[in-house]
Amino acid sequence: MSADVRLIGLDWGTSSLRAYLYDASGIVVASRQRAWGIRHLPEGGFTAAWQAITKDWPACVAVAAGMVGSRQGWREVPYVDVPADAASIAQGMLRIEAQAGRELWIAPGLCRKQPADVMRGEETQIIGALALHPDYQANACFVLPGTHSKWATVLDGRIAAFDTVMTGELYALLMKHSILGAGLPAETTQPFSQHAFLRGLHTVKESREQGVFSRLFSTRALMLAGELSAEEVPDFLSGLMIGEEFRIARARDHGRETPLCLIGDASLCQRYIVAATHFGYAEPTVIDDAAAQGLWQLASTAGLLAQAPLHSYSGVTA
Amino acid sequence: MSADVRLIGLDWGTSSLRAYLYDASGIVVASRQRAWGIRHLPEGGFTAAWQAITKDWPACVAVAAGMVGSRQGWREVPYVDVPADAASIAQGMLRIEAQAGRELWIAPGLCRKQPADVMRGEETQIIGALALHPDYQANACFVLPGTHSKWATVLDGRIAAFDTVMTGELYALLMKHSILGAGLPAETTQPFSQHAFLRGLHTVKESREQGVFSRLFSTRALMLAGELSAEEVPDFLSGLMIGEEFRIARARDHGRETPLCLIGDASLCQRYIVAATHFGYAEPTVIDDAAAQGLWQLASTAGLLAQAPLHSYSGVTA
Repeated sequence: MSADVRLIGLDWGTSSLRAYLYDASGIVVASRQRAWGIRHLPEGGFTAAWQAITKDWPACVAVAAGMVGSRQGWREVPYVDVPADAASIAQGMLRIEAQAGRELWIAPGLCRKQPADVMRGEETQIIGALALHPDYQANACFVLPGTHSKWATVLDGRIAAFDTVMTGELYALLMKHSILGAGLPAETTQPFSQHAFLRGLHTVKESREQGVFSRLFSTRALMLAGELSAEEVPDFLSGLMIGEEFRIARARDHGRETPLCLIGDASLCQRYIVAATHFGYAEPTVIDDAAAQGLWQLASTAGLLAQAPLHSYSGVTA
Repeated sequence: MSADVRLIGLDWGTSSLRAYLYDASGIVVASRQRAWGIRHLPEGGFTAAWQAITKDWPACVAVAAGMVGSRQGWREVPYVDVPADAASIAQGMLRIEAQAGRELWIAPGLCRKQPADVMRGEETQIIGALALHPDYQANACFVLPGTHSKWATVLDGRIAAFDTVMTGELYALLMKHSILGAGLPAETTQPFSQHAFLRGLHTVKESREQGVFSRLFSTRALMLAGELSAEEVPDFLSGLMIGEEFRIARARDHGRETPLCLIGDASLCQRYIVAATHFGYAEPTVIDDAAAQGLWQLASTAGLLAQAPLHSYSGVTA
């Protein structure tokens, strides 16, 4: 099966690289994924990764978003200030020559001055999500769970503000290196304990303005008292940490009337749905394929598609 | 020079062991310190450590406090509930035979049920501090900075409540293993940057109910923006973390009228004095020698001194 293709999109983060090949209407007709995040490049670096992941694909124009535009990336692309929309982000893109005669446009990240905060890659996912669900353009809160979770407020079609909480990184540090994770079963192969997770959520919610730091050590105290088993610790701690994101959001007055949208790993999103309900939010909408859609939107907004020649591609598998 | 001696006291924690030899009136006439915390015992374990650190000392009755009474210690001594005073703690001590004919009484730790929390060793320091400064018996807040900082409220001569914040452990994890500590100079030999420390305090104070988790990532954002140098990161992060203790204390309504007392390492106490002032507290009193005094108090309260024979000791160095 063959298709006329117009664009290559790269979602290039710290730990992985995903590539998308789009047809003339923006449908993804092929995609590839490698563990070549910018900290884990193959021999030959960025160029080698680019050539390998686009191998045998037509010579379309390309766009990329994520840590590839950071100081440690292929080319540093200065941050764009919030409030930001597809137009201001597209305008901030920088062009490099990925290989002879092949242009690659790298998207900027966003920054907020006060309090200081930055994102790279998530802005593109949000732009994609807004294209997929235009009803959220007027007002929504996008939550992107992960190593560094992002909470972004969209108002009148623009990303108005955002906040980072280092939930995933802190959770991993606590489990791996702190006294709270000491002596736990080597691998958590047991199923998700919703009971322990809810107990963590409840504990941090009840801390009110004090927050999770005032309750972290209770993990240890409950274990010593025999009230929390070693098997329950990971999900209890997960509830504490994810609950803290919602506690902060409420303190920051991310109003509970604003609809929540989730973009991320499915099982992680499931935890956030449980947490949202526990903290009195309506059930969030989970939005898939946001990155691929966002890359297409940025290329379109930048005017890269209007001038891009169509190429024929015969490797369509779907 | 020789003295009549009556008691041996052991302050035995996770990472170190201190031993004190007291005269008949409770003055320390000799002391020793080894790196034999309960996780770092010499060959021969607890018994060998005991024999070595009391070598050549008279066969006095002995008391010990700290992690030596934990599940991983020499003998697990059940926690005593708060509110607690010298009498209830002394009553909770358990006797073991450290070696043939030598009794060693191990102090219990304290526990609080809701929210769950525990301490071991700090209760003895607080008892000692109250004996040294009886004016704080009516009402004071004792802050013991460290790996797991403790904030304990004393009311009417009793330890009424306490809270643990994992400040030191979290700080070390963030510096050593997180993205915030990545790429910093290998060793921080530069002097304390009060400017960076105050900026950290200010940042977490201004977060109000949101707390330190909502601001941790700003360390990264400020570095990327060139507004925080790599050299300033350690003290900025220290300000964030220590400031969070004070933010929590205020949220918990440890009233600022209650006098603050500090027990701990001198340079760490200096940081807490700066933080206390920044958060609107009167300058805290730093109390030294609290552990040695507390062990004596527990022995006295338990009635161990009245029946203890005096031994002559000729190794007094002071």
